Amino acid sequence: MTAYEIIKKKRDGFALDEAEIGFLIDGYVKRSIPDYQAAAFLMAVFFRGMTDTETYLLTKAMIGSGDVIDLSVFGNLSADKHSTGGVGDKTTLVAAPLAAAMGLKIAKMTGRGLGHTGGTVDKLESVPGYRITLSGKEFLRQAGEIGIAVIGASGELVPADKLLYALRDVTATVDSIPLIAASIMSKKLAAGAKNIVLDVKYGSGAFMKTAEDAELLAQKMVALGQRFGRNMAAVISNMDRPLGNTVGNALELQEAVDVLRGKVGGDIRELSLTLAAELYALAAGVPRDEAVQKAEQTLDSGAAYEKMRRWIAAQNGDADALPGLMALYAEPAVTVPCPVTGYIAHMDTEKIGTVSTLLGAGRLTKEDRIDLGAGIRIHKKTGDPVSAGEPLCTLYSKKADIAAAGDAYLSALSFSETAPAPLPLIHKIIR
Amino acid sequence: MTAYEIIKKKRDGFALDEAEIGFLIDGYVKRSIPDYQAAAFLMAVFFRGMTDTETYLLTKAMIGSGDVIDLSVFGNLSADKHSTGGVGDKTTLVAAPLAAAMGLKIAKMTGRGLGHTGGTVDKLESVPGYRITLSGKEFLRQAGEIGIAVIGASGELVPADKLLYALRDVTATVDSIPLIAASIMSKKLAAGAKNIVLDVKYGSGAFMKTAEDAELLAQKMVALGQRFGRNMAAVISNMDRPLGNTVGNALELQEAVDVLRGKVGGDIRELSLTLAAELYALAAGVPRDEAVQKAEQTLDSGAAYEKMRRWIAAQNGDADALPGLMALYAEPAVTVPCPVTGYIAHMDTEKIGTVSTLLGAGRLTKEDRIDLGAGIRIHKKTGDPVSAGEPLCTLYSKKADIAAAGDAYLSALSFSETAPAPLPLIHKIIR
Repeated sequence: MTAYEIIKKKRDGFALDEAEIGFLIDGYVKRSIPDYQAAAFLMAVFFRGMTDTETYLLTKAMIGSGDVIDLSVFGNLSADKHSTGGVGDKTTLVAAPLAAAMGLKIAKMTGRGLGHTGGTVDKLESVPGYRITLSGKEFLRQAGEIGIAVIGASGELVPADKLLYALRDVTATVDSIPLIAASIMSKKLAAGAKNIVLDVKYGSGAFMKTAEDAELLAQKMVALGQRFGRNMAAVISNMDRPLGNTVGNALELQEAVDVLRGKVGGDIRELSLTLAAELYALAAGVPRDEAVQKAEQTLDSGAAYEKMRRWIAAQNGDADALPGLMALYAEPAVTVPCPVTGYIAHMDTEKIGTVSTLLGAGRLTKEDRIDLGAGIRIHKKTGDPVSAGEPLCTLYSKKADIAAAGDAYLSALSFSETAPAPLPLIHKIIR
Repeated sequence: MTAYEIIKKKRDGFALDEAEIGFLIDGYVKRSIPDYQAAAFLMAVFFRGMTDTETYLLTKAMIGSGDVIDLSVFGNLSADKHSTGGVGDKTTLVAAPLAAAMGLKIAKMTGRGLGHTGGTVDKLESVPGYRITLSGKEFLRQAGEIGIAVIGASGELVPADKLLYALRDVTATVDSIPLIAASIMSKKLAAGAKNIVLDVKYGSGAFMKTAEDAELLAQKMVALGQRFGRNMAAVISNMDRPLGNTVGNALELQEAVDVLRGKVGGDIRELSLTLAAELYALAAGVPRDEAVQKAEQTLDSGAAYEKMRRWIAAQNGDADALPGLMALYAEPAVTVPCPVTGYIAHMDTEKIGTVSTLLGAGRLTKEDRIDLGAGIRIHKKTGDPVSAGEPLCTLYSKKADIAAAGDAYLSALSFSETAPAPLPLIHKIIR
């Protein structure tokens, strides 16, 4: 068997078998198959696609390239969520302690932000003292005792994905449904949870631009996870405007805390409740309505906030700082006034993510350092009526070019004289 | 401009412009664009193809990556032929001196054999003393004085093709019409001849398996050459059986000499006459019939053979050795008897080329050394009646496993009780 034969077979539209896919992934990870052959293979997959079985075998081979986490000690209660990435998406910070407060076991690995999307690791690091690294033993013990532990992703899980993703990123082979599905699911599956809920986003701030594409990807991933024996659900949610009213690290953590304290409602509360309820419904085998009701009660009772405090404290974070977190940063702030009277018709959400990066809240490259206090507080969103001169948002930044960021923010918005059609937050839930 | 953008544009089916193609080729040759990006690009081209204008621009950029040969001193008389590669194809050794004897100027660079196909350089080296390298001055002076000089291909012509071909060879991106056309034509055009005739082969011993594919490639290359201001023709010829009755280096040179001496006729004489006549017709602007007649007269008069003797002698070769060349090699010979009585129905010509390589006449890798005396003398070809026990071929080799080569030769043949349909040698001529 040679890499050449495998590339040619895929190129010519034939399905690869387990031995061939295993040979390719193993050889690539061991560097006996060079980047250029992997690149040609990826482009052939871009054009030819992969059958569900091939995608399953690819995912399996990728998982086999590294360590896997064994959460079997938690029986049917281990739970994990994954978002395909968005702007202002702090649902993990609400849904994870909420699910834990409902009795699930969240032993979660999460990532840093890159490009226009934020990352949960960065948000958690905005809490003074929070330890993003735990030993394997500490991680499992904490998840067992408190119900939740959240650490940074380990490079030892699915090294094949790390290599392949870096290659896809420079060879225009990222946007292939089977490659995306295998990339996301190999990491989720290696992370070990029995119950997995995917938040698959679509719209101007998401990787998938249409609900149809998001749904197709979600279906593939749900089927894939089920083939590995996991309980799976996917929520197809709108990312055509930022989620919640903040973009940035401390800003988003603060907002999540406010949701858990019952001080903030809206889309961020609704989506977090939905995700936690789906996890609970999968694990407990109860109807969706019952799970949603239980999630609402748990949130409203303050139990989810209490769970967050215990979790943060267990990982050495200052739980008492949570309600007033933004005050710690003393970040210079500038408001952006609205230029017209009317309605916000549309928000180019990816561009708003980029504005946040300009302010210092995000990274353009993995090596960039970020300013945890920087970001955007959004006062008006798509569909809101606005008056000329009224503040549209407040920008937080230590950078001198904050005015340019304000112009960039305005260029991301379009206005109309009449109210636009309402945007549904949740397009569909798939199981 | 980035390589990523160019890959993505081609991937998404858009035509690239001159700046983009130039950026890619220039960057690849200078190694600022890595192999893996070039590989992804090539696979995208495999799937998306290239417009005629893109292929022209690619060819232009490739030519621009190295030196070009100026044959303008020969006015409209410079001529070159190219074969897409076959088994037993010694037409250059007949057509080139024949064209020179008709007054054309052949300043030709040619290659070594690889895989199942032979190369003119190896065949010429079977002549004692032949110098395959001349200085640029010697090369042009000899072509001017004698009408013909043939040397080994220089690495300084189209370095982009050398790099790209090596990459295509290991990434399953060889068989793409625009990439093949640009690869062949960039080298032919850089080599400077005004009149170019392509021998595009199809069948079991050729790269193109069908006449239709060969014709499509031929049309693209003819149009491409014309866009660069050259006089172009292509002969679509059959390679479903070996050309002539010999495969090997000294064996083929000997056969070419025998054709020039009027001692051998058949397909090799017919195709060589056609190629030389096409070159003459292009250069002189005369009708095809007239050119064929002149070629036949020139061959039959002995003038072409005399031209070959002068050419070989001018490059230090022993012209007097030509008629008895094979005797110099004292190669052990074994005949392969026919197992049945009937007809030869088909010859797997690529396999026969591989047998020749097994005997020592060809290379599996560029570094292999070859035995110039080794090869196959074919006594019976497709369509010939055969009797059990009658010799099918004679194998020449210094290797011990000559018997295994005999079995491999037999496995390349199929027999029938009735005569198969005749194979036309020349499918079509395109201008």
